[in-house]
Amino acid sequence: MAKSLFSRRSFTASAAFAVVAPLVESSQSEAAAVKPVEKPGGKGNLRRITLYAERMPDGQLGYGLEPGKATIPGPLIEIVEGDTLEIEMVNNLNVTASLHVHGVDYDTASDGTRMNNSVVEPGGRRTYTWRTHAPGRRPGGSVEPGSAGYWHYHDHVVGTDHGTGGIRQGLYGPLVVRRKGDVRPDKQFTVVFNDMNINNRPAHQAPEFVAKVGERVEWIVITHGEFYHTFHIHGHRWADNRTGLLEHPKDQTRIIDTKITGPAESFGFQLIAGERVGPGAWMYHCHVQSHADMGMAGIFMVTDADGNVPDHSGGGHSGHSTGTHH
Amino acid sequence: MAKSLFSRRSFTASAAFAVVAPLVESSQSEAAAVKPVEKPGGKGNLRRITLYAERMPDGQLGYGLEPGKATIPGPLIEIVEGDTLEIEMVNNLNVTASLHVHGVDYDTASDGTRMNNSVVEPGGRRTYTWRTHAPGRRPGGSVEPGSAGYWHYHDHVVGTDHGTGGIRQGLYGPLVVRRKGDVRPDKQFTVVFNDMNINNRPAHQAPEFVAKVGERVEWIVITHGEFYHTFHIHGHRWADNRTGLLEHPKDQTRIIDTKITGPAESFGFQLIAGERVGPGAWMYHCHVQSHADMGMAGIFMVTDADGNVPDHSGGGHSGHSTGTHH
Amino acid sequence: MAKSLFSRRSFTASAAFAVVAPLVESSQSEAAAVKPVEKPGGKGNLRRITLYAERMPDGQLGYGLEPGKATIPGPLIEIVEGDTLEIEMVNNLNVTASLHVHGVDYDTASDGTRMNNSVVEPGGRRTYTWRTHAPGRRPGGSVEPGSAGYWHYHDHVVGTDHGTGGIRQGLYGPLVVRRKGDVRPDKQFTVVFNDMNINNRPAHQAPEFVAKVGERVEWIVITHGEFYHTFHIHGHRWADNRTGLLEHPKDQTRIIDTKITGPAESFGFQLIAGERVGPGAWMYHCHVQSHADMGMAGIFMVTDADGNVPDHSGGGHSGHSTGTHH
Repeated sequence: MAKSLFSRRSFTASAAFAVVAPLVESSQSEAAAVKPVEKPGGKGNLRRITLYAERMPDGQLGYGLEPGKATIPGPLIEIVEGDTLEIEMVNNLNVTASLHVHGVDYDTASDGTRMNNSVVEPGGRRTYTWRTHAPGRRPGGSVEPGSAGYWHYHDHVVGTDHGTGGIRQGLYGPLVVRRKGDVRPDKQFTVVFNDMNINNRPAHQAPEFVAKVGERVEWIVITHGEFYHTFHIHGHRWADNRTGLLEHPKDQTRIIDTKITGPAESFGFQLIAGERVGPGAWMYHCHVQSHADMGMAGIFMVTDADGNVPDHSGGGHSGHSTGTHH
Repeated sequence: MAKSLFSRRSFTASAAFAVVAPLVESSQSEAAAVKPVEKPGGKGNLRRITLYAERMPDGQLGYGLEPGKATIPGPLIEIVEGDTLEIEMVNNLNVTASLHVHGVDYDTASDGTRMNNSVVEPGGRRTYTWRTHAPGRRPGGSVEPGSAGYWHYHDHVVGTDHGTGGIRQGLYGPLVVRRKGDVRPDKQFTVVFNDMNINNRPAHQAPEFVAKVGERVEWIVITHGEFYHTFHIHGHRWADNRTGLLEHPKDQTRIIDTKITGPAESFGFQLIAGERVGPGAWMYHCHVQSHADMGMAGIFMVTDADGNVPDHSGGGHSGHSTGTHH
Repeated sequence: MAKSLFSRRSFTASAAFAVVAPLVESSQSEAAAVKPVEKPGGKGNLRRITLYAERMPDGQLGYGLEPGKATIPGPLIEIVEGDTLEIEMVNNLNVTASLHVHGVDYDTASDGTRMNNSVVEPGGRRTYTWRTHAPGRRPGGSVEPGSAGYWHYHDHVVGTDHGTGGIRQGLYGPLVVRRKGDVRPDKQFTVVFNDMNINNRPAHQAPEFVAKVGERVEWIVITHGEFYHTFHIHGHRWADNRTGLLEHPKDQTRIIDTKITGPAESFGFQLIAGERVGPGAWMYHCHVQSHADMGMAGIFMVTDADGNVPDHSGGGHSGHSTGTHH
């Protein structure tokens, strides 16, 4: 099981590297993705992975799928409704740490809180079990929602009993629970507004994401810390529902390009890169003015079919300091 | 009318007391609920209650259904679309106070503002009339929404012309307008984020709510004051719509376990206690890290069928100071 | 084209003036609206307007459709899905300015950012092109959302590369993209929460909006700057979807009368003035207590059929300082 999972992962990981074509950097280049394997039968799978909590060379904290490979955000974990994921967390930190998840099904033994005695001492390891299920009807007739969603995981004990210190230093990551039949994206980008930074990057160094015109790009947006933010992308928009996609052309769900979000909220959506607007350097940023001015801004680089981008000046854009794309 | 209402109330109140089984405290133990009586005909009822605005022994302010019985939050008032509620407010405070409501139909004479001369002098009384209606179609064909929702009421004049002082000290309460056909919950819990506290409780003493596995629990969440918050429950989630319940299994409404909310917003939802996660002590808290750390956290205690809860350490959890459940 | 547009505009502008009947002021009295002309064929139109960025007599900045006619908020621009709007912006300021829009389709050349070299030097002019489209299906079968929505435009370069200085001083305005078949309102009101003010008005001088009982009123609510706010109207409510109107009586979309909103978010809705509550002076305000107390509050004046309003005391209400309605 674990074996097939990892081989699958290595495959998707190399695919993920396509996201970071020579000219750019991307948080996806760092976080090897854990992707699901769907069984023809549609029956859920049991998956097992090991997650290492470690201190990184720069002093921040991260989760990784292999020792010495921790990233911020942690690995993108993607499963399908019905799957069960057993995560053995290895705590290579010198403080007690844990793994708390949003959205899926877990016993208090997998809560990741000190209150429920589900934390991991330094040097220790503990298995957390996440279960998921498809939507259905309860005996009484009411609808039980499925587990599908854009969720996330984080430490719940470093620094305070709510994990304030662990989250601040980088112990968090994205979780996507896919519904059978959901459209798979070509690329996935994770943006975490954590206090006044994006993905714990220094100011003005937010990740630059790249896609070709027409590629289906999935954005996973998570907020942590103290502040509220408003996530905005230039030239693109999405539906404010589970998938970001309308169900039918008359669907009256709000279409938005800016969304207020607060700590521990997460949402995601798919868009078609450059649809009706073409290639170019499109800003994404927090639209709280002081946050954008202080560097909570990056670039969604949409290339043409040949991977080229119309020239543009890097002068103005604070998030563009890496300007390595020419 | 009033008579049948009160007899009904006393009945549901005792039912409500079941919420606070020996081992716990609950805001519902303090706020006797005003419950609706549905007529077979489905025609709305006229109800009458008296609401007393008083200073409580601890110096805070509250609304109550009887003199000397004020609570924070005030009584849970529940009516059915079509009902009219006449509330005679008696002001036992030494300052002018009022009753302003969200969501339902009222004339400016029931606005509860100084601007509309609808406030109550010290020692005075005034009748506020709240009307409700079912959804329907306007002559022009557009849909008129019904009054159903998770609403709330509060003072609008103590301290400032917006009731800032009255709200801060406790003059607020929940209002549920039920739609005919809506599923009735087994238990109802009200959580009010008011500045940096929950239900005006001291830090680290948020109410502990108890339900048995499988019980249908309704949460009513209201925010007041200055700050935004993100409401989160461990191990449970809901649909971000009117009821918190999906309409059908393919409904694409977002399923969430964390929601940003600001002053005077209110929302509610029903969940099945321990569904797919089992009994245990599940935290609910504001997920703004400093707010949680400062004590905006409590416990949703889910017991097994026998009323027992798997043991857990109270060590870490700040909201667990009452720890009277063993 | 431009000619027919302007003649149309002058017509709707005079209609708009009806909003500000003798007794009141209104932001709509200042912002002449750009309204669409719908072709029988339903094919989109190409429209052209000129927008002047100027310093106003009071020292603030604004956009206007004619020299010396700048307003805050800028002109209400309304188009229909399928339309293309060419806006020649004339920069009469002594600093570089630009025009950035939310929600519609534009190339990077119309991004309005320094990064994309789409700004306007002092004394210069530049044409920005906004395109729109109706919803439809992509070749792959997924739904492409239409451009309809309550959007907005603003400067993106004055003061900082995110336009913080331009927005603070007034360079912003509303954009409504209508879907064919959408109900047209009788009146439109724009409320912009910009830092701690409404429409850049002094504290306690928010616009007073007037409508007759039964009129269909459209509210366009935009937020800018640093802070989050909660928009609330007394005695009225709306559906939290694209139009503010339910699709059918069983639609489970949340009905709200208070909504949290952050910088660059925008939403809108239609309501029937005084529906089930009658004429009167209804407050609208930010419900963050200190914001309301400091003057982020105004009046929605609903008159009877004869244009009369039940008397009310202006004593308490901070936003009521103009009190010219008796």
